[in-house]
Amino acid sequence: MDEANAILLLSCQDQRGLVARLSNFIFQNNGNIVHADQHTSKSGKYFFMRIEWELKGFALSREEIPVVFAPLARQYDMKWDLHFSDYVPRMAIFVSKHLHCLHDLILRRHMGELGAGIEVVISNHPDARELVEQFGLKYYHFPISEKNKDQQEVCELELLQEMKIDLVVLARYMQVLSGKFLENYGSRIINIHHSFLPAFAGGNPYQQAYDRGVKIIGATGHYVTQQLDEGPIIAQDVIKISHRDTIADIQTKSKDLERVVLARALRLHLENKILFYGSKTIVFE
Amino acid sequence: MDEANAILLLSCQDQRGLVARLSNFIFQNNGNIVHADQHTSKSGKYFFMRIEWELKGFALSREEIPVVFAPLARQYDMKWDLHFSDYVPRMAIFVSKHLHCLHDLILRRHMGELGAGIEVVISNHPDARELVEQFGLKYYHFPISEKNKDQQEVCELELLQEMKIDLVVLARYMQVLSGKFLENYGSRIINIHHSFLPAFAGGNPYQQAYDRGVKIIGATGHYVTQQLDEGPIIAQDVIKISHRDTIADIQTKSKDLERVVLARALRLHLENKILFYGSKTIVFE
Amino acid sequence: MDEANAILLLSCQDQRGLVARLSNFIFQNNGNIVHADQHTSKSGKYFFMRIEWELKGFALSREEIPVVFAPLARQYDMKWDLHFSDYVPRMAIFVSKHLHCLHDLILRRHMGELGAGIEVVISNHPDARELVEQFGLKYYHFPISEKNKDQQEVCELELLQEMKIDLVVLARYMQVLSGKFLENYGSRIINIHHSFLPAFAGGNPYQQAYDRGVKIIGATGHYVTQQLDEGPIIAQDVIKISHRDTIADIQTKSKDLERVVLARALRLHLENKILFYGSKTIVFE
Amino acid sequence: MDEANAILLLSCQDQRGLVARLSNFIFQNNGNIVHADQHTSKSGKYFFMRIEWELKGFALSREEIPVVFAPLARQYDMKWDLHFSDYVPRMAIFVSKHLHCLHDLILRRHMGELGAGIEVVISNHPDARELVEQFGLKYYHFPISEKNKDQQEVCELELLQEMKIDLVVLARYMQVLSGKFLENYGSRIINIHHSFLPAFAGGNPYQQAYDRGVKIIGATGHYVTQQLDEGPIIAQDVIKISHRDTIADIQTKSKDLERVVLARALRLHLENKILFYGSKTIVFE
Repeated sequence: MDEANAILLLSCQDQRGLVARLSNFIFQNNGNIVHADQHTSKSGKYFFMRIEWELKGFALSREEIPVVFAPLARQYDMKWDLHFSDYVPRMAIFVSKHLHCLHDLILRRHMGELGAGIEVVISNHPDARELVEQFGLKYYHFPISEKNKDQQEVCELELLQEMKIDLVVLARYMQVLSGKFLENYGSRIINIHHSFLPAFAGGNPYQQAYDRGVKIIGATGHYVTQQLDEGPIIAQDVIKISHRDTIADIQTKSKDLERVVLARALRLHLENKILFYGSKTIVFE
Repeated sequence: MDEANAILLLSCQDQRGLVARLSNFIFQNNGNIVHADQHTSKSGKYFFMRIEWELKGFALSREEIPVVFAPLARQYDMKWDLHFSDYVPRMAIFVSKHLHCLHDLILRRHMGELGAGIEVVISNHPDARELVEQFGLKYYHFPISEKNKDQQEVCELELLQEMKIDLVVLARYMQVLSGKFLENYGSRIINIHHSFLPAFAGGNPYQQAYDRGVKIIGATGHYVTQQLDEGPIIAQDVIKISHRDTIADIQTKSKDLERVVLARALRLHLENKILFYGSKTIVFE
Repeated sequence: MDEANAILLLSCQDQRGLVARLSNFIFQNNGNIVHADQHTSKSGKYFFMRIEWELKGFALSREEIPVVFAPLARQYDMKWDLHFSDYVPRMAIFVSKHLHCLHDLILRRHMGELGAGIEVVISNHPDARELVEQFGLKYYHFPISEKNKDQQEVCELELLQEMKIDLVVLARYMQVLSGKFLENYGSRIINIHHSFLPAFAGGNPYQQAYDRGVKIIGATGHYVTQQLDEGPIIAQDVIKISHRDTIADIQTKSKDLERVVLARALRLHLENKILFYGSKTIVFE
Repeated sequence: MDEANAILLLSCQDQRGLVARLSNFIFQNNGNIVHADQHTSKSGKYFFMRIEWELKGFALSREEIPVVFAPLARQYDMKWDLHFSDYVPRMAIFVSKHLHCLHDLILRRHMGELGAGIEVVISNHPDARELVEQFGLKYYHFPISEKNKDQQEVCELELLQEMKIDLVVLARYMQVLSGKFLENYGSRIINIHHSFLPAFAGGNPYQQAYDRGVKIIGATGHYVTQQLDEGPIIAQDVIKISHRDTIADIQTKSKDLERVVLARALRLHLENKILFYGSKTIVFE
């Protein structure tokens, strides 16, 4: 008996009867809807939906669903994705010298809180090897210089393909991935930026925040695009600081924030709760 | 041409096909859904929905909708309410000596931010009369003593009925309304409590918070029931305090919070975004 | 008997014995310290202090304090200001078409929460006159065009001088004050910016936030300098938004935030709790 | 050359000249104050101070300071403690089955963020042994039953004494320590409670929060006293929840909060920033 759920993410131009058509599709195949979220953008009247139903008792097999759904999707010119709740995505974590987010993800995995497998940790530094291997995980060290960067990215891409990685997470990875890398890696990449974007994009946001004298600092989990720090934002949070906080204090406070915000962004992605609208996200929390 | 929307709030035991039936009802009458939210409780498998559609082009008149919908509702044993987005509810505000929430509501009304009419302000004190009348609003003073309380409540109820009041808001009203009053006033009453319930229920929560040495204080907007401070919670928020804050400081900080939390609770109620599940609320934000 | 306190704000290069010298100055004149806050910047070793003591029983009169203190201040090359807690600063509020912050300040004054007198409201629009005058306050309308701006600023400055205004508050005033105005108006000016600076500086931050798809919006209370939106920050706060929030929703949420943040910034200023370090503030909360 | 700082925490009845006497004590011994915080309670006029100065160049050795300071302390009937910033307290962590806080502390130690040594982990369950030993830390398993509880506490106390433990942290330890244990263990014990105290004291606060339908949950770091969940509060924080959150969701959100709040409470304790006033804390952040 199939205990998993099917999750359909779709978007298209808004039209009368869309919800009726979609809910009928599920009902007529004997499906039981457990969650449904929808949103219609005011500007442009674009329709977004996430619909989740039980596979138990559903008339269509996992393989049949996309086949039967496709004509309906074509009729409305939908963008759509189908997921199953029991699939455990294969994740690669990229990291440099700041290891707090990596640590956090490893422990969430260890506690069974992370809905993904950490298949490999990739770093341009050797520092994290011991910790990573101690938890029985694979570690690859790709030192990056100006000269070897292109070649190393090719190797990294090969590794990701070979390991069938579904999702790359940049857990404070301090190298900018090339446009070529982003193009060749077909799927989404999630990054944690240690500021409240769009404030303090680019390098050393702790220092920037300190110099500007802000009273609140933040962290942003977002998808990576070729425009550095301008990809669609998934999650953000902030914490108060004061004139008493040195840059070291700001870093300490921020690290707690970065861990929580990255974990939240990842959870939303892994639960298939995110759709895209231009450079923005629709997040069905 | 009717530019308003219809809003249906409903709840019933969860069943296969519910969403399909409901969306078909709207689609077959040529309605365009602009918002739909649903929730199924894990415990008890109870289904909640808020569905909003355009009256423009809808095949049924405002009067016909409940007539045509009723058989469907009966079939699923639904609790349901129908609202129209252009109806401006008639509100009465009860207040005692602390006037910050009253002030706030008056100014929101003045700025066109409040989706309700302030038909009357009722108080057991004369203090607010000048301010209220200055804004062209009606003010009734019902002094309350142990002896006259029952009689005064009868008068208040008569006034509410006469003025066709849809909603009573207790904006820091320091008298406990009797069970009799609550029974006789058929509709919902919203209260702002100046603590993070269930902490510091009852009298003088500022003092209680100060004495306990908490590091955060809060405010709670909730519906009133016969169990004091135990009604369904609509909205809550908090603010940090420290050992430096005297009771006067706590009060000053709290007053800002109370204004914002009461306004948020009111907005959610007035936008018909709240359903009930036992002593809890489902809030479709 | 003088029930007020003296408040000394000072800063200078850090040196051994500074606190001892300052506390001795007060003790030897029979003063009782009720608050003292100090901070030494890590970078540059600069010392900041706010010290508040009772005038009751103090050996020096209000006039004598600066005379007796001056030699000590010179010795350490201090910047310093002396304030008395019973002085009620004279405030002018500048406003344009968005009146929520003005409303808020008027009502705080009405409730006795604002430690300043609202001597005059100045606007480039006539809209707020009725509300302002209804509360017995003065209203001056200075329409601004490209052509008359310089001349109108001269008139405004004359009015501020004539009225002995200590503090100008820009409560959503949509005109940029000229460098000349800032130079000629000797004291501080406080502005509320409707974003989390430095994000979304400049015009229409609501739209900017909406377009970028941020998940949190903010407000910033800051001193005005000739660099637009780059003055020393006093207070900031944020609130969560989602893809469901239209620009109108963002505005509604932000307005609550702006009122609270401006009031907080003002309170800190009026309680003489702010010192300056370059373009940053030291805020002794 | 001694690069550490001395930190003096003291409290006594407020008197004229206290700050002068204290700062003179340090100045006359050639000390350089790097931080000073003070607070006078409005009720009872009680004075609290934390003063930190450089040992470099100070005229008194570490051993001499208390000897020379004692007469001054006696004169004002002070409670006082002297600490040195380079001392690394020896910590024991008690844990049961929920390991997220333990994990977090281990990794903070691993990253060099925790100003204490984790000398031993004590548990009434065997579950955490592998993780703990993997990081080279000691693990003791003391199974607790109704019958053996008294005896096991004796053994635990012996172990703590033998290991010269300065601080016990209850990182979600599900056994109530007996009054006898608390009396015999002379120092402070810090607990993390998974609710916003005083709301939801006692068992299963997640369930309590769910049943009450609150819109915000919290966590509280506090010192342990014989009155369960009533000890002095050090730090609190909250996070929003909604009707969509199941008890499992509440737990997941809370766990992130508990980790951060416990770490913050610990940091404040380890930096000697906490004084006591009855059952409340003065926290010099």
